[in-house]
Amino acid sequence: MLEAKFEQAAFFKKIIDAFKDTVHLCNFNCSPSGITVQAVDDSRVLLVSLLIGEDSFTSYRCDHNITLGVDLTALAKVLKCGNNDDTLSLVAEDTPESVLIVFEDTQKDRISEYSLKLIDIESDFLDIDDIEYDSVVNLPSSDFQKVARDLSQLSDSLAIVVTKDTIKFEANGDIGTGSVILKPFTDLENPQNTVKVELNKPVLLSFGLKYLLDVVKGSSLAPAMSVKLSEKTPALFEYKLPSGYLRFYLAPKFEEEE
Amino acid sequence: MLEAKFEQAAFFKKIIDAFKDTVHLCNFNCSPSGITVQAVDDSRVLLVSLLIGEDSFTSYRCDHNITLGVDLTALAKVLKCGNNDDTLSLVAEDTPESVLIVFEDTQKDRISEYSLKLIDIESDFLDIDDIEYDSVVNLPSSDFQKVARDLSQLSDSLAIVVTKDTIKFEANGDIGTGSVILKPFTDLENPQNTVKVELNKPVLLSFGLKYLLDVVKGSSLAPAMSVKLSEKTPALFEYKLPSGYLRFYLAPKFEEEE
Amino acid sequence: MLEAKFEQAAFFKKIIDAFKDTVHLCNFNCSPSGITVQAVDDSRVLLVSLLIGEDSFTSYRCDHNITLGVDLTALAKVLKCGNNDDTLSLVAEDTPESVLIVFEDTQKDRISEYSLKLIDIESDFLDIDDIEYDSVVNLPSSDFQKVARDLSQLSDSLAIVVTKDTIKFEANGDIGTGSVILKPFTDLENPQNTVKVELNKPVLLSFGLKYLLDVVKGSSLAPAMSVKLSEKTPALFEYKLPSGYLRFYLAPKFEEEE
Repeated sequence: MLEAKFEQAAFFKKIIDAFKDTVHLCNFNCSPSGITVQAVDDSRVLLVSLLIGEDSFTSYRCDHNITLGVDLTALAKVLKCGNNDDTLSLVAEDTPESVLIVFEDTQKDRISEYSLKLIDIESDFLDIDDIEYDSVVNLPSSDFQKVARDLSQLSDSLAIVVTKDTIKFEANGDIGTGSVILKPFTDLENPQNTVKVELNKPVLLSFGLKYLLDVVKGSSLAPAMSVKLSEKTPALFEYKLPSGYLRFYLAPKFEEEE
Repeated sequence: MLEAKFEQAAFFKKIIDAFKDTVHLCNFNCSPSGITVQAVDDSRVLLVSLLIGEDSFTSYRCDHNITLGVDLTALAKVLKCGNNDDTLSLVAEDTPESVLIVFEDTQKDRISEYSLKLIDIESDFLDIDDIEYDSVVNLPSSDFQKVARDLSQLSDSLAIVVTKDTIKFEANGDIGTGSVILKPFTDLENPQNTVKVELNKPVLLSFGLKYLLDVVKGSSLAPAMSVKLSEKTPALFEYKLPSGYLRFYLAPKFEEEE
Repeated sequence: MLEAKFEQAAFFKKIIDAFKDTVHLCNFNCSPSGITVQAVDDSRVLLVSLLIGEDSFTSYRCDHNITLGVDLTALAKVLKCGNNDDTLSLVAEDTPESVLIVFEDTQKDRISEYSLKLIDIESDFLDIDDIEYDSVVNLPSSDFQKVARDLSQLSDSLAIVVTKDTIKFEANGDIGTGSVILKPFTDLENPQNTVKVELNKPVLLSFGLKYLLDVVKGSSLAPAMSVKLSEKTPALFEYKLPSGYLRFYLAPKFEEEE
């Protein structure tokens, strides 16, 4: 039996909105410690890894592992039906054919119940090792979002160059070139504005902007994010949740591709 | 001679916007006591009945009955040209070929005049008897609008089930099912938030959501509405105007259709 | 060498947005006294003439005349990448193949640099004589914009009739006719609301609304504008900049065209 209740429907909505354009079908793996999702986009280039820890819920009960195979487009339709301030509960049997999604407006004593059909989705769960990256950049999510959107006007590829005291984003296209330079910057009053670089080794990596535009949809989940980069290794873009995370793993482009 | 003046153009705009997507051509029947419209949608399933009583106008004069056959798409174009706070006058001869629509911005002493060509529209005016319904529900217009829009994500049909102490809306579709339950609720401070059920007999009726999505466009006219239901009888959805009403009559679906 | 710096990127953005839908390729002629553009739309009916005087810049240096042939669609893409409050610098060599566009967020010490490829554009620079017009109307830009947009719902042509004490705009179409009358009006507190007519001779001229809808895109540049009219002469629609102007010259329609 799964009974997982969010204090605000808006929180779960934002999580789903952050990756529903990347992935269309995925398994929600519910365990006593929380809910995880791992899925790749259709072109198998971008991997999404989500953890919603049990502390994300106002109440959480999951006795056994339960897998919910969900069509995210259908789920997003249902989530639109809740008010942001409603509570949202996910309820499922141990081997469920559907998941119950219950919105409750406690002020008005009003309940909306949706039963969403589940589907069988084959998927391997990869063990992703924690590796040490050459460069780790912490920056405001909105800054990275703006850079990706701006430079996508010029090119399909974004080069990220990290050195000790700058992060440089570059794009090269038919109409010209663009570059944006961020410098480390500490904002004690608004720590989410801080830009920080931890560097073992400078890196220069290129990524498909098509995928980065999917990644930055995570921006609504957290004001700050981290970008972890190493040569020849998928980069890790991480948005932290109050308990858990939304991570995107994206392989850099090889020189010959660009 | 018709001379009918609204204090605010926005009021007439809202009325027209509320049914211009349902009906494209209709007669405005002007009489000494006000203006009425009766028209059905193209599929002849949804009937619109409008009364703008003479008290809706700051000044109203109509000596004889005058019929204005109007293309609502053209009228809506003209209404877009007025500012919401302008006064709006409708002026027509006794057997008019066009109607004059005059916007006046009294502050700036600015007048815009539009002459809209009229058309001959054949139509029968039905006498609709006041019948006693099995169930009458009063509820906030925005609640009904939200229910119809939300559940239209799941299905083409909406079932409405009224019992003594609940109004239940249900939809059943490919991706799953949804139900929203409203309970009677009295809000003395904001009476328009009140949900009230008057019941002679419980009802269970299904309606095409395509039509209900047209009906709920009346929501901008009144904060509260009533839904009147009887077996095998067109349901009546009513939005009250300060003087008059906008009513939609919609036949329920038969079992075999669903 | 050109080095021209705007205090706010928003200012240059607004200028480009005001005519980028009218003209697609144009030369920016940079001289020691400022930057000028002259270009006609594809149908060669509407002429745009822009002057950005050197006082529009916080710093301006241009030793020799430099011509920058620009694809405005590409430029607009780059301009979207700047924040409104960033400073914006245009930098170019004496015989440049590209122009550097530099946005700087002085608060965050953040620089974005774009290099836009230039193109060779053949163009004649017309000397437009200052003539004396029959009627000169000063009016709020937003009023003229609203009139053009409203009456474009009815017709392709707009007639402008100026007499001593009224400016009348008229449109005549399939669904009916519309007319808007403005009267001279002095607003000492908000001089930009003033409507003023200087009249040597009454005029009645018709213009293509398709072109006027392009003209009114200048409205965001100045709260007030002037319209200068003479029989058989292109009308002049002028938006003044703090130092300079954006002017549109539009030939009236001949009777037989209408």
